[in-house]
Amino acid sequence: MQFTAIQIATLIQGKVEGNPDAIVSNLAKIEEAKEGDLCFLANPKYEDHLYNTKASVVIVSTSFEPKQAVKPTLIKVADAYSGFALLLEKYNEFVSQSTKKGIEEPSYISKSACLGQNVYIGAFAYIGDNAQIADNVQIYPGCYIGDNVTVKAGSTIHPGVRIYKGCSIGSKVVIHSGCVIGSDGFGFAPQKDGTYKKIPQIGNVVIEDEVEIGANTTIDRATMGSTVIKKGVKLDNLIQIAHNVELGENTVIAAQAGISGSTKLGKNCIVGGQAGIVGHLHLADGTRINAQSGLSKSVATPNTALTGSPAYDYKSSLKSQAIFRNLPEINQRLQKLEEMMQEFIEATNNKKHSDLA
Amino acid sequence: MQFTAIQIATLIQGKVEGNPDAIVSNLAKIEEAKEGDLCFLANPKYEDHLYNTKASVVIVSTSFEPKQAVKPTLIKVADAYSGFALLLEKYNEFVSQSTKKGIEEPSYISKSACLGQNVYIGAFAYIGDNAQIADNVQIYPGCYIGDNVTVKAGSTIHPGVRIYKGCSIGSKVVIHSGCVIGSDGFGFAPQKDGTYKKIPQIGNVVIEDEVEIGANTTIDRATMGSTVIKKGVKLDNLIQIAHNVELGENTVIAAQAGISGSTKLGKNCIVGGQAGIVGHLHLADGTRINAQSGLSKSVATPNTALTGSPAYDYKSSLKSQAIFRNLPEINQRLQKLEEMMQEFIEATNNKKHSDLA
Amino acid sequence: MQFTAIQIATLIQGKVEGNPDAIVSNLAKIEEAKEGDLCFLANPKYEDHLYNTKASVVIVSTSFEPKQAVKPTLIKVADAYSGFALLLEKYNEFVSQSTKKGIEEPSYISKSACLGQNVYIGAFAYIGDNAQIADNVQIYPGCYIGDNVTVKAGSTIHPGVRIYKGCSIGSKVVIHSGCVIGSDGFGFAPQKDGTYKKIPQIGNVVIEDEVEIGANTTIDRATMGSTVIKKGVKLDNLIQIAHNVELGENTVIAAQAGISGSTKLGKNCIVGGQAGIVGHLHLADGTRINAQSGLSKSVATPNTALTGSPAYDYKSSLKSQAIFRNLPEINQRLQKLEEMMQEFIEATNNKKHSDLA
Repeated sequence: MQFTAIQIATLIQGKVEGNPDAIVSNLAKIEEAKEGDLCFLANPKYEDHLYNTKASVVIVSTSFEPKQAVKPTLIKVADAYSGFALLLEKYNEFVSQSTKKGIEEPSYISKSACLGQNVYIGAFAYIGDNAQIADNVQIYPGCYIGDNVTVKAGSTIHPGVRIYKGCSIGSKVVIHSGCVIGSDGFGFAPQKDGTYKKIPQIGNVVIEDEVEIGANTTIDRATMGSTVIKKGVKLDNLIQIAHNVELGENTVIAAQAGISGSTKLGKNCIVGGQAGIVGHLHLADGTRINAQSGLSKSVATPNTALTGSPAYDYKSSLKSQAIFRNLPEINQRLQKLEEMMQEFIEATNNKKHSDLA
Repeated sequence: MQFTAIQIATLIQGKVEGNPDAIVSNLAKIEEAKEGDLCFLANPKYEDHLYNTKASVVIVSTSFEPKQAVKPTLIKVADAYSGFALLLEKYNEFVSQSTKKGIEEPSYISKSACLGQNVYIGAFAYIGDNAQIADNVQIYPGCYIGDNVTVKAGSTIHPGVRIYKGCSIGSKVVIHSGCVIGSDGFGFAPQKDGTYKKIPQIGNVVIEDEVEIGANTTIDRATMGSTVIKKGVKLDNLIQIAHNVELGENTVIAAQAGISGSTKLGKNCIVGGQAGIVGHLHLADGTRINAQSGLSKSVATPNTALTGSPAYDYKSSLKSQAIFRNLPEINQRLQKLEEMMQEFIEATNNKKHSDLA
Repeated sequence: MQFTAIQIATLIQGKVEGNPDAIVSNLAKIEEAKEGDLCFLANPKYEDHLYNTKASVVIVSTSFEPKQAVKPTLIKVADAYSGFALLLEKYNEFVSQSTKKGIEEPSYISKSACLGQNVYIGAFAYIGDNAQIADNVQIYPGCYIGDNVTVKAGSTIHPGVRIYKGCSIGSKVVIHSGCVIGSDGFGFAPQKDGTYKKIPQIGNVVIEDEVEIGANTTIDRATMGSTVIKKGVKLDNLIQIAHNVELGENTVIAAQAGISGSTKLGKNCIVGGQAGIVGHLHLADGTRINAQSGLSKSVATPNTALTGSPAYDYKSSLKSQAIFRNLPEINQRLQKLEEMMQEFIEATNNKKHSDLA
């Protein structure tokens, strides 16, 4: 399928600079593009690619002014990244085979479960007692939806997701394969004989609207009350969210990070990959934790950036890290000073002796 | 459903202080409690909550003496946490819907598999050849129980657990969704041409009684012999246990930690979240590894605490971490000393010159 | 089943030293071996085990010369580890029950899917529209093979693997339970109101021949183009591979490591457990990243070894780590120098005064 630059521009409300009849048939990254490809340039860091790309059409931001002649036709939009994302979305809608509908057999749907209009239930999916599956929900093959679970309208549950009993999933939520929602929190009371006694976990997990959760991420149910993932949160793959955690609206967490029990993150926080946050902390809105950091204290000031393990103020921590590399040199400088000091002392003592002599 | 303070006290063998007829209908955390809620206070750190809570009844330890007047009725038991845990357990038994029984269809049960009394086999569960499933075992939907696997009495296998052939699961074991037990150990022999040749992994995994394993944790089978998880071990989510590892009785490991091949932990060890332990080590009983630490040496002395990456003695490591933060200041102090020393040398030289003059 | 030393030697083209009629019936590790066991000794570090083992036969390398008398019969081969691996392989072929064939019911196979000769499709497996499953492929129970997925000859997909639509799996690939291949890359465009807009992920994942992937590992599909895992790559459990990553031939990654988006690793790289690599980097062939390291810069020189978080040159980093432990002592030495300097200044000032007096 082929489009002209002017057709694309119309679709994303952009302005053409160059040949409006340039033809594209594929989306690509600017550094890998071939003739007939459509790309975008959002990050000025990659501007050089624009002067070498073989792409036929490139989407750029209105504010962007090329420093050299460019071969491809440009389409200018307010924000190149968002413009391209819009295009991807339309492309996705077009080619998508995800518009599956109906109930595949064999599947297991409890008689007391309630299904909305226009749902997709894949083969080998299990829908428990009193589960509520709203309109336009897609539940892919092999999912487990426990008793009394609710899934609101327009959500997509990818193959092999497991949602334990009593959990609640909002609307337009996307949960990727292998996620486990509502497994028991890790709570055990140590006994005098060295064994541990399980603390029953009688709460649940509440996932609000427009949350997306990556593959194989685990979110434990609360001991009591709810583990809460608020509206618009985006979680990457293989993340651990412990019992009674709360994640504020639009908080974003990268892969393999872990949040320990009862910790509460504010809105619009950003947690880097493989970072860890200990339990019972409060993080102000806009807190940013760097990848691989380990945070062990609450953060009261909004928009604080932290790094390191243990994590503290981003800029100070970077300075310490820079000096860490010079520790062998610092050690040598210190030794040299010690030697000089020693010489001084000896020289002074000798001088005293000679003065006295 | 409602209970009075005296009814609760009788149930957990406690003593009432205050109104024995105070009514509760819900369990809650002390900081979130409303009227009609029952809470507990175990950690003295949270004592202040007791003087502000709206809870109607609070369970405390016998040893606890309030410093101010308290509004809620108190129930005193030997250990508040254990007392509350006992209550949670009874609550859980009461409301639990986990008493599923029988065989749901469709499921796949090999003719040579052997099922005990009173088992639950969920829909889409797969029970392989010669598998032995003992009395009162619950196997939730979508589990895979490979050939020759044994699961002893009273164990619960949550939805979507995969147990490879020949592994052995003890009694009263709980395995959460998405766990993989008995996948191949990561063993490859490097070849001269840069490729790797797989070392077949012909051992198995043995999980003893009363072990609990969190969601999406992976435990690899031994190359030869067994990977062994001893009685009472508790594993959190997303943990990696490599081939031929042995975990001693009642050892506890937090989420996302990883134990490399052939390492053996003693009894009652505690490993923090995201910690890593390299292969072929021996850890004495009671070893404690802090979160995010990286342990690369065996630990011979029981009850040693370690932290850092690489990990060493807990207290020394904390001191180094504290000074790490001051590295920029240390660097400045060192520079200043160097300058002073330089001035001294020059001054001394000048003086020599002037003395000579 | 029993074998003599000479039978084993013939099988692996080795030379017997000692009793050629020594009988073995089991494979074991040298430190755990009993009479009748067959072991190997490859790592000279474990040589002492040879003089104490109860094993009946031990495979060693031709170059190995024992320093003491040894009781077991020795079989010498060019490389002891490879020789033993070969034996394990033959043992595995013999006892293996993995020669399952045919289609178990119930399973779900789209009418438009295409199955080769001699395939195994386990119960509850799902084969989507236009999927191509080549000869001798084994798809274990509960797998999900999405629309338009291809799996080439001789590959093994263990129970509960999920492969999203449009991904491509090479020949002789092994994928362990719980892996997710082709989930959406983590791409969201921040909006002015603080929310995030999903960037559709329209690419796929391409896994080349002879790759092995551990349990619960996740590999995201590319935003555009392909996430590529090249021939012979070996991935351990619980690894995160983000969108548009490329892993070069024979690269090996240990458990719980994470590679961020668009990063490209060369051939024969080695990444340690729990290491993290940020996005958009290029790593030269043979790069080695230590466990728990955090790499944030590209590596241009082949065969570079790095460690630390942030990671840099292995040897320098180890030196800094060694001094890190001595930071409290360094701080004390610095304080002492400062005090001495202060005394000097005072002494000098006093001397000046007394000189002037």
